[in-house]
Amino acid sequence: MNTLKIAIIGGGSSYTPELVEGLIERIEELPVSELALVDVEAGREKVEIIAALTQRMLARHGLERVTVSVHFALDDAIRGAQFVLTQLRVGQLPARAADERLGLKYRLIGQETTGVGGFAKALRTIPVMLDIARKVERLAPDAWIINFTNPAGIVTEAISRYTKAKIIGLCNVPISMHHMIANMLEAPFDAVRLRFAGLNHMVWVHQVMHSGRDVTAEVIDRLCDGATLTMNNIKEEPWPPAFLRAVGAIPCPYHRYFYQTQEMLAEEMAAAAERGTRAEQVMQVEKELFELYADPHLDSKPQQLSFRGGSFYSQVALELIRAIHNNLGTQLVVNTANRGAIHGLADDAVIETNCIVDAQGAHPLAFGRLPESMHALTQQVKAYERLTIEAAVHGDRRSALLALVTNPLVASAKIAGPLLEDVLQANSAYLPQFTL
Amino acid sequence: MNTLKIAIIGGGSSYTPELVEGLIERIEELPVSELALVDVEAGREKVEIIAALTQRMLARHGLERVTVSVHFALDDAIRGAQFVLTQLRVGQLPARAADERLGLKYRLIGQETTGVGGFAKALRTIPVMLDIARKVERLAPDAWIINFTNPAGIVTEAISRYTKAKIIGLCNVPISMHHMIANMLEAPFDAVRLRFAGLNHMVWVHQVMHSGRDVTAEVIDRLCDGATLTMNNIKEEPWPPAFLRAVGAIPCPYHRYFYQTQEMLAEEMAAAAERGTRAEQVMQVEKELFELYADPHLDSKPQQLSFRGGSFYSQVALELIRAIHNNLGTQLVVNTANRGAIHGLADDAVIETNCIVDAQGAHPLAFGRLPESMHALTQQVKAYERLTIEAAVHGDRRSALLALVTNPLVASAKIAGPLLEDVLQANSAYLPQFTL
Amino acid sequence: MNTLKIAIIGGGSSYTPELVEGLIERIEELPVSELALVDVEAGREKVEIIAALTQRMLARHGLERVTVSVHFALDDAIRGAQFVLTQLRVGQLPARAADERLGLKYRLIGQETTGVGGFAKALRTIPVMLDIARKVERLAPDAWIINFTNPAGIVTEAISRYTKAKIIGLCNVPISMHHMIANMLEAPFDAVRLRFAGLNHMVWVHQVMHSGRDVTAEVIDRLCDGATLTMNNIKEEPWPPAFLRAVGAIPCPYHRYFYQTQEMLAEEMAAAAERGTRAEQVMQVEKELFELYADPHLDSKPQQLSFRGGSFYSQVALELIRAIHNNLGTQLVVNTANRGAIHGLADDAVIETNCIVDAQGAHPLAFGRLPESMHALTQQVKAYERLTIEAAVHGDRRSALLALVTNPLVASAKIAGPLLEDVLQANSAYLPQFTL
Amino acid sequence: MNTLKIAIIGGGSSYTPELVEGLIERIEELPVSELALVDVEAGREKVEIIAALTQRMLARHGLERVTVSVHFALDDAIRGAQFVLTQLRVGQLPARAADERLGLKYRLIGQETTGVGGFAKALRTIPVMLDIARKVERLAPDAWIINFTNPAGIVTEAISRYTKAKIIGLCNVPISMHHMIANMLEAPFDAVRLRFAGLNHMVWVHQVMHSGRDVTAEVIDRLCDGATLTMNNIKEEPWPPAFLRAVGAIPCPYHRYFYQTQEMLAEEMAAAAERGTRAEQVMQVEKELFELYADPHLDSKPQQLSFRGGSFYSQVALELIRAIHNNLGTQLVVNTANRGAIHGLADDAVIETNCIVDAQGAHPLAFGRLPESMHALTQQVKAYERLTIEAAVHGDRRSALLALVTNPLVASAKIAGPLLEDVLQANSAYLPQFTL
Repeated sequence: MNTLKIAIIGGGSSYTPELVEGLIERIEELPVSELALVDVEAGREKVEIIAALTQRMLARHGLERVTVSVHFALDDAIRGAQFVLTQLRVGQLPARAADERLGLKYRLIGQETTGVGGFAKALRTIPVMLDIARKVERLAPDAWIINFTNPAGIVTEAISRYTKAKIIGLCNVPISMHHMIANMLEAPFDAVRLRFAGLNHMVWVHQVMHSGRDVTAEVIDRLCDGATLTMNNIKEEPWPPAFLRAVGAIPCPYHRYFYQTQEMLAEEMAAAAERGTRAEQVMQVEKELFELYADPHLDSKPQQLSFRGGSFYSQVALELIRAIHNNLGTQLVVNTANRGAIHGLADDAVIETNCIVDAQGAHPLAFGRLPESMHALTQQVKAYERLTIEAAVHGDRRSALLALVTNPLVASAKIAGPLLEDVLQANSAYLPQFTL
Repeated sequence: MNTLKIAIIGGGSSYTPELVEGLIERIEELPVSELALVDVEAGREKVEIIAALTQRMLARHGLERVTVSVHFALDDAIRGAQFVLTQLRVGQLPARAADERLGLKYRLIGQETTGVGGFAKALRTIPVMLDIARKVERLAPDAWIINFTNPAGIVTEAISRYTKAKIIGLCNVPISMHHMIANMLEAPFDAVRLRFAGLNHMVWVHQVMHSGRDVTAEVIDRLCDGATLTMNNIKEEPWPPAFLRAVGAIPCPYHRYFYQTQEMLAEEMAAAAERGTRAEQVMQVEKELFELYADPHLDSKPQQLSFRGGSFYSQVALELIRAIHNNLGTQLVVNTANRGAIHGLADDAVIETNCIVDAQGAHPLAFGRLPESMHALTQQVKAYERLTIEAAVHGDRRSALLALVTNPLVASAKIAGPLLEDVLQANSAYLPQFTL
Repeated sequence: MNTLKIAIIGGGSSYTPELVEGLIERIEELPVSELALVDVEAGREKVEIIAALTQRMLARHGLERVTVSVHFALDDAIRGAQFVLTQLRVGQLPARAADERLGLKYRLIGQETTGVGGFAKALRTIPVMLDIARKVERLAPDAWIINFTNPAGIVTEAISRYTKAKIIGLCNVPISMHHMIANMLEAPFDAVRLRFAGLNHMVWVHQVMHSGRDVTAEVIDRLCDGATLTMNNIKEEPWPPAFLRAVGAIPCPYHRYFYQTQEMLAEEMAAAAERGTRAEQVMQVEKELFELYADPHLDSKPQQLSFRGGSFYSQVALELIRAIHNNLGTQLVVNTANRGAIHGLADDAVIETNCIVDAQGAHPLAFGRLPESMHALTQQVKAYERLTIEAAVHGDRRSALLALVTNPLVASAKIAGPLLEDVLQANSAYLPQFTL
Repeated sequence: MNTLKIAIIGGGSSYTPELVEGLIERIEELPVSELALVDVEAGREKVEIIAALTQRMLARHGLERVTVSVHFALDDAIRGAQFVLTQLRVGQLPARAADERLGLKYRLIGQETTGVGGFAKALRTIPVMLDIARKVERLAPDAWIINFTNPAGIVTEAISRYTKAKIIGLCNVPISMHHMIANMLEAPFDAVRLRFAGLNHMVWVHQVMHSGRDVTAEVIDRLCDGATLTMNNIKEEPWPPAFLRAVGAIPCPYHRYFYQTQEMLAEEMAAAAERGTRAEQVMQVEKELFELYADPHLDSKPQQLSFRGGSFYSQVALELIRAIHNNLGTQLVVNTANRGAIHGLADDAVIETNCIVDAQGAHPLAFGRLPESMHALTQQVKAYERLTIEAAVHGDRRSALLALVTNPLVASAKIAGPLLEDVLQANSAYLPQFTL
């Protein structure tokens, strides 16, 4: 195994330069021989800009030996790959913006992972991901799919239940929380250990250890005193101290959608009116980023990428690949099948938690039962997720309707019906599995 | 065992005449020798009116041999009883009305069992019920507590987990649904069998059998065509047909609070503005009823009681007592500990489902796993219930806050704090377990 | 549905007259129009004797209107049937005798349901039963299979997991224990209620109620004082009192194989040497029975049948059919899928327990967790059963070997291998699913 | 925390020099300041020999700064300790020899951990260990108990369920298997990773990875070809290849007691007749060892200790202490509470499996469900263990009897009674919890 080929599906993403930078830093441990960038024909311009930038970045470090190829079909890219990174966006940013506007039409959260937006995105994305995974099964059966594609938990579960491809899901929320908590404690990243358990974009930090000492209560106290823990794409709505102390754990930023729904909705509506929805803002950021990327003198990741939102993605992805490739047994927080780690969830339900990662994949640490209130929300959201997967895989309207009714951000029998028809109509180009 | 003594805690309730009527009808199989009516000192006038009416009703049927006693303390009433019926209301109707108004203040459902009202009522009621149960443990350890007191599921679970008293919880929702479905099918009550499983005031009919034939889909079709299934204290908000067909089961009327929250809230607000809240309306009905009851010529249950809302309570209570007293092994729908009947709930979680009832109590039929969307709601509501029980038993504010956050009708970290303080303040006379 | 057709697969069994007698007694509630007796060509003589006797028995009661047909193929018998009774014996008594002798060769219990004999019988029987069930699926999809064929628990589970046919398994052990305990208490059968939970031929009575009073401890005391509880085909090895009191429940007679293995083995060996194995003895009894049955003057069940061993089979079978046919909701002890009734067993694991039986089948009462020592044995035996089913259905030697190692009556890695080869060799005519 | 005090209960054990040697090798990472050796008065001579040898060994490496103290009471030894190692033997080797002889009297395995010997040892040991743990709770609440005392799984579970002391159980079986498999593969220890899951002395290796490659089947093939995997205190009875291939995992040496019971019993009986029981042989080895230890010129671990049987104990103990003390997150195989790691076992059931160990203790990796046959044996043995714990903690004869009946190496209702009385009689000096 002297070659190491990584395929990047959605290679034209503005995040790719961050990944390339991370690869260059770890080239000793991850001796990549080929990067295969794959994108759709409609994204040809972008992926070619990225490919050229990647080559300039590699050249700057004397790594011309790394082949960079561009593909508009899957087969050649996947064949021979050891890792297949999926970071695609079906319908691209306009579809995301349409989801957000559709949510707001019903006075519902339209955000792209947890609300109506996440539901619509799952329906669009799962058929495409299944197609990729089935190609991986056939053309590169030993390869690992490293999935960033949102909603990452749902997509990873759909693939791991409906195909034989090996897949691990990733998100930058856990590592971002790790950095933020370490900063708050003024401690080095490695001196802080966190115990995560939950679902993607709905994960709690149950314990914070600083140099072996349990400092969870101290971190909660600081958060109660006004320290914030957020990410640059989610508004810093502070948590009521009594709530944080009652929960006794640290919610992730996305928990705000569930526990501060009205405030978040008001914020989304105001932002949409004033600055455009999140997707509409991102489109502007992306436009500017690609102008920079196209500059033939640029041969490193530009500073501006950090405003885009996906900080540390590169770090988690490459640490994961490093742990698998070198069979390290590293402890990482990823999305993988439960296998009993959290009580009350099916063995094949994908969760987000601390895992040991080695050449055989991710092995979750047993967590036990979540405290009552977290258990309740997790059951509810996982039920929504599984209904969404059934809907997306089988084109089943009945499951789709129940998914919306079960999603705590919709939860209305009256709205679910017309909302579902709107979602199906708006995305008809991407939903061959549904008969309209 | 030649005597059969029944104690009725909350004997001054306007429902008691219905119970007495049912007893008279079944006197052969339930040879009652004593009815001990218990109430609080503040309810002296009412309970004495009821006792006198009861005696007149008995006399009319030549049953003067049945002793009717009135008590303002528990011990004498409980001692020697085989059955202790609990149908009390701590704080009486004014407390219920205050709960409803408090809910509306926060634009939340204030209804007395599922919303904020149910939460406040549980906090008020559980300490009183624990006191009764501990007296039963000591003074009548073989007696069965038959609990009607709302929120019946929560109260029954609190008692069965925290005392050794034998208890079964009752509700008139299942029997009312049974009558309504039989009417809809133009079939005799006994020709129709229903399979219930869920929680109190959140129970589904999973299967309707008519003379051995599964007619569930037919009943759903009729409901979709506009037949209604409701109770006279809940507005007949029709279910969207697509929702009913997707669920594939028949929701109980109270499900509307969970799946049509906004519509129900709007209705509650309009009614409160126009006619007063439900409790305020009931106070008027009660006033009129007691005027009738006090008439020394009245010696039977007046027609007007049927407007009060608790139809069939008498039927379910007395069928239950009959099955226990005569060791019948009858199939009844009651509230009892799960013991594995519904997957994913603790053995000691109280559920509402078909049970075999004999002298040893209620034995639930195994149901298996609820379909995904019902499982999700059940997990959420049961978690709320258990947090509420912890709060009520231990006076624990942390559990109380998490209970409100977990209740899908509140579900807001921002509102839960001030709302909880309001509840505790308004009910301080009834909440010795909490330190204010 | 004015016709009621019952097909009896294995109609030439010596038990059939008992069944016919029971049908005649219940003809009002079970208005049978046709009895279709099916057997293999090799059993032609027997089944024709039975058919003629059946006709004489019916005639004696003026029931000539009931058609009695004889079949040597399944299709015509099954088509149009509402009930299909399976009481067949693949390889007939010689195969059973061979099993018993094979067991003894290895100094192991060879008994036809629990030991090596049960294993061999399961391998022989399951393919034949699958064939019947698939015919029922196709030709009489609404029919219920009522299975007596041993090992009844294993066979019922195999059919219910691997086909869509509706099946309930039956055994005369629970009803025999019921009769024996009622006799011991000098109480009428109906005044005694028993709570059974376990597996077929490994079931405990957890509670005995006499007229609503729990008399379990009293029954155990009597058993400790020397009262016996056995069946005429199992030796009355008394239970040590300390053991019975520690268990706190009443084991079934077959529990002796598990808890008194050495004593039972010694008994089996002595009997085999002196009187022949059980099958060899039964062959003699059968011979005599059929001589009686052939007598053209005989028109009722002869007394001698009661020595055959299957007492009360007719009662349980016909009460079950009556409950289903008339949608009664009767409480009966049958073998059906667990669905959570006993903790720690799969939903599709067939158990033996109290069920409510109506037109929709058998609904087990939730039992909860078995006490520790019973839980252990049940897990072990059920694992053996499931491995045996895998072996029988798929012809999988690996599962077969693990089944034997897991069976507590074998439990030896050294013996399992040669024993398995002997079983496969001896039964090769009946095991098309295995490649030798 | 500049001091690191380790208390060794049972400090007079012949194994202690191995532990001391290991400490000296790791003194940089485990800067021990005090070793407190505790033993009973009857063991004074031995513990003083060990203390003197320990001091000589330390002095040889210039570590006179490490204090070595000897105690015959717990309090002073425990106070201030960070780690409390328990390696005691109640009744010492004569009690073990008596157990072995008692087992053989009944033709049962008398071995000190799995058979009758393990049962008797648990009854003797648990009260003493509870006493130690309660002292640790009070005097050194942050200390970790590292338990080697057999039966290690049972003892660890008893302490972790009945006290608040922090405890991890250890055994040298997993590391010995690791060494043996690495040798078989001619691979360095660290290049081989094993996935263990099961119970103490009943653990399987489910997967062998060599440099990231799954070589489980290859290892099984080698074992089938005659390679052995055993420990010097268990006879090398080879596994039948068909059994190993069917199991698809690697049993630990002690599995022979369960799957080759008759062969192991025959071997025990022959050895007892020829060479004495294992304990009798060990007494001779120990005598010779202590003669060596007493030599004032000896200042290192003598070669002869390796014949004693506990190889690698020192390695596992010190790697565990190192991982906790330095908060390393190392993957080790230890005995700890299940918390869902293996399906079907209680959260507080102690299992033996791969764990991540850091300053907060041991966190098991989720394993999921054991294959059917392993699941069955594990359920049976864990039930035996839990009944034994109940018996030992509460002096409950009923649980004790059921424990013996449930132990697959006894499993007889007839033998269990007299055997139990013999065990209680023979150990009456050590069983204050039982009334005789």
